[in-house]
Amino acid sequence: MDLSFLRAHDAVRDTAPLIQCLTNKVVSNISANALLAIGASPAMVDTPDESQDFAKIASGVLINCGTPNSEQYAGMREAIAGATAAGNPWVLDPVGAGGLEKRTEFMHEVLPQGPTAIRGNASEIIALAGTGAGGRGVESTDGVEAALEPALKLSRETGAVIGVSGPTDLIVQAGERPRAVSLESGHPMLQNVIGTGCSLGAICAAYLAAWEDPFAAIIAAHAHVGAAGSVAAETSTAPGSFAVAWLDALHELTTDAIEERISASEVADVAELS
Amino acid sequence: MDLSFLRAHDAVRDTAPLIQCLTNKVVSNISANALLAIGASPAMVDTPDESQDFAKIASGVLINCGTPNSEQYAGMREAIAGATAAGNPWVLDPVGAGGLEKRTEFMHEVLPQGPTAIRGNASEIIALAGTGAGGRGVESTDGVEAALEPALKLSRETGAVIGVSGPTDLIVQAGERPRAVSLESGHPMLQNVIGTGCSLGAICAAYLAAWEDPFAAIIAAHAHVGAAGSVAAETSTAPGSFAVAWLDALHELTTDAIEERISASEVADVAELS
Amino acid sequence: MDLSFLRAHDAVRDTAPLIQCLTNKVVSNISANALLAIGASPAMVDTPDESQDFAKIASGVLINCGTPNSEQYAGMREAIAGATAAGNPWVLDPVGAGGLEKRTEFMHEVLPQGPTAIRGNASEIIALAGTGAGGRGVESTDGVEAALEPALKLSRETGAVIGVSGPTDLIVQAGERPRAVSLESGHPMLQNVIGTGCSLGAICAAYLAAWEDPFAAIIAAHAHVGAAGSVAAETSTAPGSFAVAWLDALHELTTDAIEERISASEVADVAELS
Repeated sequence: MDLSFLRAHDAVRDTAPLIQCLTNKVVSNISANALLAIGASPAMVDTPDESQDFAKIASGVLINCGTPNSEQYAGMREAIAGATAAGNPWVLDPVGAGGLEKRTEFMHEVLPQGPTAIRGNASEIIALAGTGAGGRGVESTDGVEAALEPALKLSRETGAVIGVSGPTDLIVQAGERPRAVSLESGHPMLQNVIGTGCSLGAICAAYLAAWEDPFAAIIAAHAHVGAAGSVAAETSTAPGSFAVAWLDALHELTTDAIEERISASEVADVAELS
Repeated sequence: MDLSFLRAHDAVRDTAPLIQCLTNKVVSNISANALLAIGASPAMVDTPDESQDFAKIASGVLINCGTPNSEQYAGMREAIAGATAAGNPWVLDPVGAGGLEKRTEFMHEVLPQGPTAIRGNASEIIALAGTGAGGRGVESTDGVEAALEPALKLSRETGAVIGVSGPTDLIVQAGERPRAVSLESGHPMLQNVIGTGCSLGAICAAYLAAWEDPFAAIIAAHAHVGAAGSVAAETSTAPGSFAVAWLDALHELTTDAIEERISASEVADVAELS
Repeated sequence: MDLSFLRAHDAVRDTAPLIQCLTNKVVSNISANALLAIGASPAMVDTPDESQDFAKIASGVLINCGTPNSEQYAGMREAIAGATAAGNPWVLDPVGAGGLEKRTEFMHEVLPQGPTAIRGNASEIIALAGTGAGGRGVESTDGVEAALEPALKLSRETGAVIGVSGPTDLIVQAGERPRAVSLESGHPMLQNVIGTGCSLGAICAAYLAAWEDPFAAIIAAHAHVGAAGSVAAETSTAPGSFAVAWLDALHELTTDAIEERISASEVADVAELS
């Protein structure tokens, strides 16, 4: 397929989008560093007092439900209201959907407000679509291919582009002409570093802010993160040094180098499923 | 002494225990990475709404009092209730015991619920046993050897295995046949990286989940963390690169390599003290 | 100018000041590691219950408004009260001043209590002095030179030494004989690692605790952090490895090496401005 949309990477570098992250405390540091590494500007503003106003001036917003306390839930509601009011893109990362009841309720509460994209692992997407039970906590116990139909359903119901992360990534968009792209990139070691997936959620928001077509933006974001993983795996076989090399690669990769390191193909039978 | 229990390391790798961490925000990232590095699966679920249910399905739970706010205290109570109800092991890491009043009260509140293990530095263990004043904040100002009697007292009162971390580690268990093992491992540079001790608390929970004998599990957890420190010290003399190398070594060490890097001996006069 | 005050670095190593950080969750880990790396002792005690008592025994306190929730605001008030009562130095890091309303109100509330130093980027200092609008979230959109007059005004009103971080740092103190020093150190890559500026705020508190002259202490703190950045840039061109090398350099730099890597000069016309 035509991969010219990978130039979204250059658009992120050129525009330095300001990305507001309401994310979990475990990954806030690596997520902010990942945003800086790709040329975006992170702001981890997540309190109820400040989130709505900030979401109106931010280029994009990430809502990540990894460790939500009551104030952060309130902040998330405010941020979504602000982003929606200003027409800014926002990404939902449904960490732990299905397995954890309270946060799953919250996700269902905000889904009707129309996230621009939803990025999760297969178990989370399946659970959010109401077609499965969710993973073991925050782990995926389902294969990516099992998430195709649920992702289409979720996209149809919310209007969001759905990114399903896994050994192979799946990016899905319903609509008049439903589409699904299967993306080969990355490296298994990415699963051994906490926060690479959550950082991908933040990076999706940056790509959405910098590129007009949301479907292409989400593919390009996954491609960038995955390609950086394959670079890191060339020099690092253990998670401490892999994490360092992955951040370095996020910063150093050119668009051409990303393209060389990934392969993407349209899933043929999407229209039939839809 | 017979070190065959170090095979608990393989049991962790084989069973990938799901470890719920209610821990402080300073170390949540490195603790999650340390759990991934040893082959366990971290889940940092710590809100009151979700903690009890999750503790029932988790393989083990860590309660670390490093930066407890009111919601996390509530979450900790729920998690302990869940772990207790399900018979799952839980570890108390009494960060700052003695020197900090409110959290020390909390620790005394939950001690009667019987943690499977308590892991701290000498000052914290001595303070928790009611036999000393605690350290300077979160630092230990007492030597490990001074903690032997307090650790025995604390073990007798709570039923927990006590792990006292320091230049030499001390693992203590009261009961009909009281035992104490002195463990030589590690490297002083471990003190210069924030969160290595807190990560050890999380790793203790993983070992308890994977190995039947709690006393052996706690020794093996300390051995793994210390051995990784001695590996890291071979290539790194400064804390940034040491932290990276330590995570790498946690991941790469074999059980045999751990055994080669540590020495453990029974403390002879425990029975007399007890 | 005479740089003998850079020996403040040795004073930090010799006295290992205990620094209480009430800081944002994004940078708490790197800030604690940075304090350990320079030989100080971090304690991230920030709850309302514990902050006042701890601030009385701490050597210095950092108040960083990066991600303040309601409990942390309360904890900050308590910590400032404790530090003030005990006569301990405290540093205000006004993250996001101007651009974010609620926290800016909080900063204005505590300014009359007399921070020993205020460290921020140019936009934050200008906004806090009431002479500008603040940056884009937590980024500086103003040049350091534009902050000279606002910094003098802020110092005059609060009694604090003002540290303005940027490509060139500016350290300012009003009073009978107003002073301003322009400091060349550091490397642009420091902007690509989250938390280097926030860590500098914590390091300022450590230097204030170890050195009698606050103006010199703040210059020396900036010099140490900047010099470590220039060391890191010699081996690292990407942010992941740069962050690791920066922490290593904070730990390894000698006072002489810091002096060789920086240049400082008095700003000539400060008295006229004042």
